[in-house]
Amino acid sequence: MDRNIKEIISQMTLEEKAGMCSGLDFWHTKGVERLGIPSIMVTDGPHGLRKQAGESDHLGLNKSVPATCFPSGATLACSWDKRLLEKVGVALGEECQAEDVSIILGPAANIKRSPLCGRNFEYFSEDPYLSSEMAKNHIKGVQSQGVGTSLKHFAVNNQEHRRLSVNSVLDERALREIYLASFETAVKEAKPWTVMCAYNKVNGEYCSENESLLTSILKKEWGHEGFVMSDWGAVNERVSGLIAGLELEMPSSNGLSDRKIVEGVKNKSLTENILDSAVERLLKVIFKAVDNKKKNSVYDKEEHHKLARKVARECMVLLKNEENILPLKKEGNIAIIGAFAKTPRYQGGGSSHINPTKLDDVLEKIKESAGINCNISYSEGFSLINDDIYENLVDQAKKAASKSQVAVIFAGLPDRYESEGYDRTHMRIPENQINLIEEIAKVQKNIVVVLSNGSPIEMPWISNARGVLEGYIGGQAAGGAIADLLFGSFSPCGKLAETFPRKLSDNPSYLNFPGEGDVVEYKEGLFVGYRYYDKKELPTLFPFGHGLSYTSFEYSDITVDKKEMVDNETLNIKVKIKNTGMVTGKEIVQLYIKDVESTVIRPEKELRAFEKVELKPGEEKIITFILGKRAFAYYNVEIKDWHVESGDFEILVGASSKDIKIKEVVNVKSTVVIKKKFSRNSTLGDIMNDPNGEKMAASLIKDIFGEEDESGDDLGTDMSAMLKDFVLRSMVTFSGGRFTEEIMESLVEKLNGRK
Amino acid sequence: MDRNIKEIISQMTLEEKAGMCSGLDFWHTKGVERLGIPSIMVTDGPHGLRKQAGESDHLGLNKSVPATCFPSGATLACSWDKRLLEKVGVALGEECQAEDVSIILGPAANIKRSPLCGRNFEYFSEDPYLSSEMAKNHIKGVQSQGVGTSLKHFAVNNQEHRRLSVNSVLDERALREIYLASFETAVKEAKPWTVMCAYNKVNGEYCSENESLLTSILKKEWGHEGFVMSDWGAVNERVSGLIAGLELEMPSSNGLSDRKIVEGVKNKSLTENILDSAVERLLKVIFKAVDNKKKNSVYDKEEHHKLARKVARECMVLLKNEENILPLKKEGNIAIIGAFAKTPRYQGGGSSHINPTKLDDVLEKIKESAGINCNISYSEGFSLINDDIYENLVDQAKKAASKSQVAVIFAGLPDRYESEGYDRTHMRIPENQINLIEEIAKVQKNIVVVLSNGSPIEMPWISNARGVLEGYIGGQAAGGAIADLLFGSFSPCGKLAETFPRKLSDNPSYLNFPGEGDVVEYKEGLFVGYRYYDKKELPTLFPFGHGLSYTSFEYSDITVDKKEMVDNETLNIKVKIKNTGMVTGKEIVQLYIKDVESTVIRPEKELRAFEKVELKPGEEKIITFILGKRAFAYYNVEIKDWHVESGDFEILVGASSKDIKIKEVVNVKSTVVIKKKFSRNSTLGDIMNDPNGEKMAASLIKDIFGEEDESGDDLGTDMSAMLKDFVLRSMVTFSGGRFTEEIMESLVEKLNGRK
Repeated sequence: MDRNIKEIISQMTLEEKAGMCSGLDFWHTKGVERLGIPSIMVTDGPHGLRKQAGESDHLGLNKSVPATCFPSGATLACSWDKRLLEKVGVALGEECQAEDVSIILGPAANIKRSPLCGRNFEYFSEDPYLSSEMAKNHIKGVQSQGVGTSLKHFAVNNQEHRRLSVNSVLDERALREIYLASFETAVKEAKPWTVMCAYNKVNGEYCSENESLLTSILKKEWGHEGFVMSDWGAVNERVSGLIAGLELEMPSSNGLSDRKIVEGVKNKSLTENILDSAVERLLKVIFKAVDNKKKNSVYDKEEHHKLARKVARECMVLLKNEENILPLKKEGNIAIIGAFAKTPRYQGGGSSHINPTKLDDVLEKIKESAGINCNISYSEGFSLINDDIYENLVDQAKKAASKSQVAVIFAGLPDRYESEGYDRTHMRIPENQINLIEEIAKVQKNIVVVLSNGSPIEMPWISNARGVLEGYIGGQAAGGAIADLLFGSFSPCGKLAETFPRKLSDNPSYLNFPGEGDVVEYKEGLFVGYRYYDKKELPTLFPFGHGLSYTSFEYSDITVDKKEMVDNETLNIKVKIKNTGMVTGKEIVQLYIKDVESTVIRPEKELRAFEKVELKPGEEKIITFILGKRAFAYYNVEIKDWHVESGDFEILVGASSKDIKIKEVVNVKSTVVIKKKFSRNSTLGDIMNDPNGEKMAASLIKDIFGEEDESGDDLGTDMSAMLKDFVLRSMVTFSGGRFTEEIMESLVEKLNGRK
Repeated sequence: MDRNIKEIISQMTLEEKAGMCSGLDFWHTKGVERLGIPSIMVTDGPHGLRKQAGESDHLGLNKSVPATCFPSGATLACSWDKRLLEKVGVALGEECQAEDVSIILGPAANIKRSPLCGRNFEYFSEDPYLSSEMAKNHIKGVQSQGVGTSLKHFAVNNQEHRRLSVNSVLDERALREIYLASFETAVKEAKPWTVMCAYNKVNGEYCSENESLLTSILKKEWGHEGFVMSDWGAVNERVSGLIAGLELEMPSSNGLSDRKIVEGVKNKSLTENILDSAVERLLKVIFKAVDNKKKNSVYDKEEHHKLARKVARECMVLLKNEENILPLKKEGNIAIIGAFAKTPRYQGGGSSHINPTKLDDVLEKIKESAGINCNISYSEGFSLINDDIYENLVDQAKKAASKSQVAVIFAGLPDRYESEGYDRTHMRIPENQINLIEEIAKVQKNIVVVLSNGSPIEMPWISNARGVLEGYIGGQAAGGAIADLLFGSFSPCGKLAETFPRKLSDNPSYLNFPGEGDVVEYKEGLFVGYRYYDKKELPTLFPFGHGLSYTSFEYSDITVDKKEMVDNETLNIKVKIKNTGMVTGKEIVQLYIKDVESTVIRPEKELRAFEKVELKPGEEKIITFILGKRAFAYYNVEIKDWHVESGDFEILVGASSKDIKIKEVVNVKSTVVIKKKFSRNSTLGDIMNDPNGEKMAASLIKDIFGEEDESGDDLGTDMSAMLKDFVLRSMVTFSGGRFTEEIMESLVEKLNGRK
């Protein structure tokens, strides 16, 4: 419906406009009845709906209505499947329509800086490209149903520890290339109706009042047309926030912020224009939500549950499979061990915690898949309530294991280990589980460990397991998915969206996580995740992008459509992938770019494209990748733009970040000239490298130092190597008066003056 | 001689005073004959005199007069011997007196941030305590002879790459606790006559015009009473430098800076007071030098050479000694292999490169030590001119090795690999040497490698060597020292003053060395050297403090004179050390402090004391350490002072940073109360931890959230853990209006108001 929103705003009182800028209650925006402005509902997400049953309470803690619990973000990202993410989004949109929810909060595109972050299970990846692609498709799916999203938590909110007071301090390149890049593509290409600002400060300023983030970058640079809402309770000073670009405060401020805004306009600390623009953004989204509302909408709970199972299956990662212990044979005795097989860990704690429509019984699903020739036993093995070792549980499990052909141990992180609101303090699973695995190994060599956890764990026990299936946080149908994979109804096809380090101290943020008091310095800079392990040549437990299959793939025939290009052209790359194994499977083909030589600090390589492809045994397909400027660029802080440094780039295509199968080289020329500025403190080396300076520098050196090849002899040094770091003004000193400051200054002018 | 310096200054013209602030030529200060102000000479050091023969040339490159070449700083520090450093200083002072030199430039107390720094061979350590103790005793020795020193390069000059233009960016704690601490004790306790400012910038400001470094810290805080001189050519803007506290520019500016200073006073951009104070500092030192001049002084070249041999022997480090391959038996055939055995690498390139009074012939010294029952052969093995492999050299060496009981390979870094003025780009020794070791290993299992290098190297070949003796840069008598140690005339007793990482990428500065353009960010912060390897649990090739002996030592009976203390008391620690082996030896006993629990980021442990003790077989001695506040303190950036956080501290005493033998715990109470300031953004956790806030926070939470134990149930989370990071103002939001901003503000006032 077409409305004249500016006209509506002109009819609103100052108080009504101010009122629009914060919630009515915990979950609704305010309406203005006389002007036909409705109140709309927003609810928690992102991998399922958490809509409070009944009236809003003041804390939003009450039980929620049933909704499909899909695998959480950390799990979804392991699918590396854009279309799948979109499908999940569509399903979420349908549930929102059925529940009369206008905006579902999420997806969450924060980067996994440390494995300890309590909320990692909601986040996609340590890599901004993968993360933003996942977020983008999630948003597209939801919004295709006429329901809005709120991309969160913007930005640099990578820990729960002191999340409402901590200041994330980081350099501009890390901010741009890692932390913001994870949001950027999603904002630009999927156009989320809203973006949620985070609790924390970034470089000294609260996100909720950070004009650079909310206005300069998000709205002006990226073209975000919707509104920004605060994370619940993230507002510090309401008027500053409004000026900075925060349109909606959530939840309700009980009138307090409304009064402050009115007062601000009256005392002129806030111009009414700013308020009007904010209201305009709010109304556009509110009316869009209303216009897209589907009356009497319902969704098929069974279909969504089936989808949840399919999705989980596509995400789980086969980490280890020695002697092809998986898939399990559908015969003999199989000992299922571990409390998680009865009480699955299928979702995380906090605002994303939902009330599932149904919940797979893992054991039952395993029995279904195993069929009648299998004898399945179950032993609890350990308690989930605490970490104590109960010998009787261990003994029962050992007995069952010793009588079986294989023991499948369900291990992982209990709820209390991992939640929104607090971070983990170590990367281990509980002691009683480690003990159990070691004890079972004494009686059974054929051990498969099925893990449920939202973030990497250390695996000191891994040599005891022949197979490890990483189930992550698999949602309400995780049980069915695990059964599908264990018995080979489908081949595992997920790959890690994050590195599993050998130990916590290997992680790049380790020295500076979670910071000191209210400051956390991101001193690892760009070197997050595999960017760090690659550069530091540090072995990992499992590298970024790793994941096994029941079949095998061959990479061949890489071709590029040009070997030389300028930075504003696009590059086409084709690679042939063949299924060389015995069963149908899916391969995630990863493309990384390496800048062969650079004057700035860059990672060894960076993920710039990926594709997931399904292949029957013997089948082959050609995958095409198209790369633009951004694939080769870094963020140049001098020109405040993405920049490609002319030179060779390697195109690395492989099955993981550590398993590059095939490569090519292209030469990219920059179309942007960054003019070097010379001064009295320019080095002779820099001057020599300038076309106009080469001869100048050489004759200056010869004049002052004579034949440089010999001049260093009595110092036992290579004088020519030493000289290139001398600065111009030091030559005045060393010239004995011949090279004057006046001559130097005219030389600098000449160097700078010429084009 | 007593002089009224102020009176002299009052008689000087403005031009004369300005003239005092820069050199007469490359090596002299200006004199004013009519007022009896003499010109004094300064020359390069630090481990020997580089006094130019004849007239100064404008570059200071001409051949220098003979002087004793002692082991360089990197080597000296491995002695961990304070008295030995002082002895070297005394000898240097004697040579200065004999050569009419008033000030010898050095010692150099820069921290070894990266193994690649070209000048590491001149620097002492990666640890500021060890470095400053070494510098202190060097200074004491030289100055005891009436000769001045110039402690350099102040400060944060840890690479040669772009040294005249680079900006070292680092945080205040790393600056204070690591980089400045390395100078601090030496300045405070040894009172160097002068300090030399470095070429580079620190946090944006050239050292030569850095008022914070030169005046606030060096002069005011540390009480430096001498003058600051520039590194040669380090002056950027002369007047700014003078204002910042740089008294002497070196070398001559050919009158340019004199004119600028005069002009500055005339146009009032510089007050004459500042100039007068600078001249006063200059004259005090110049007259002190003249007054301490010893006429017709000579030194005994033979005695100094003997001292150089003894010193080298005390420094070299036995890194590996499998099956006690060392000491060598004085019988049979010994193959000496490697060009360094004929052309020793005994000093580094650059300004410290001197003309030795004599130079040990390594082979000859080995033959002397081996005696008549040994047959010593020599093969060149590799070329020093380039890295090419010459098969004939390798074959000859293999033949000799195969006919011998043992092969001693002299390997290391050639001159061209390591020098002032440029950094290394990798940590390997030349390919031809690696190849040689591997080839020799094919014919001879008994391999001893003797290394000469100024900084750590990677040792991919180490499994081929049963023994490795690290000779470092051993000075002119290195040959004799090596012979003494190889054949067991003395037991090796040096220990590493720096970590040998397994590979370059393990080094903490690796991701940010040598920086981008003219900026190098010290993002590793405090985690330099063992502080990093410890915290990251990263294995090393050889840890800090490591060094073997031909005998063995037992540590026992650690006692402390108190188990509880306040931070301004001193703590006495006693440890018993016994020689449990068969020969006389020296042990370097190291004491580290670990802060068991801290609210700030701290290293795992830090070196706070050490002692070197000589013991005959069976002998035992009690070592006493005395620790003051500083041993437990970190630099608190809030109070701008060293601060001890109350709590337990472990006293770790051992043979290396990775070989702690014995420990104790003391509880230290701070005498300084740092009042916490509360605000609307204080966390509930912080308020709970305050004695006055505990009850407030609890009742606030109960009021708003009810019984917190249950409130998180529907979110699957532990609400009490989550709540402690909520901030006060967010409680206003979540209270539904009951907790108002006014109540909050009065609560904050109460928290802050009470003592």
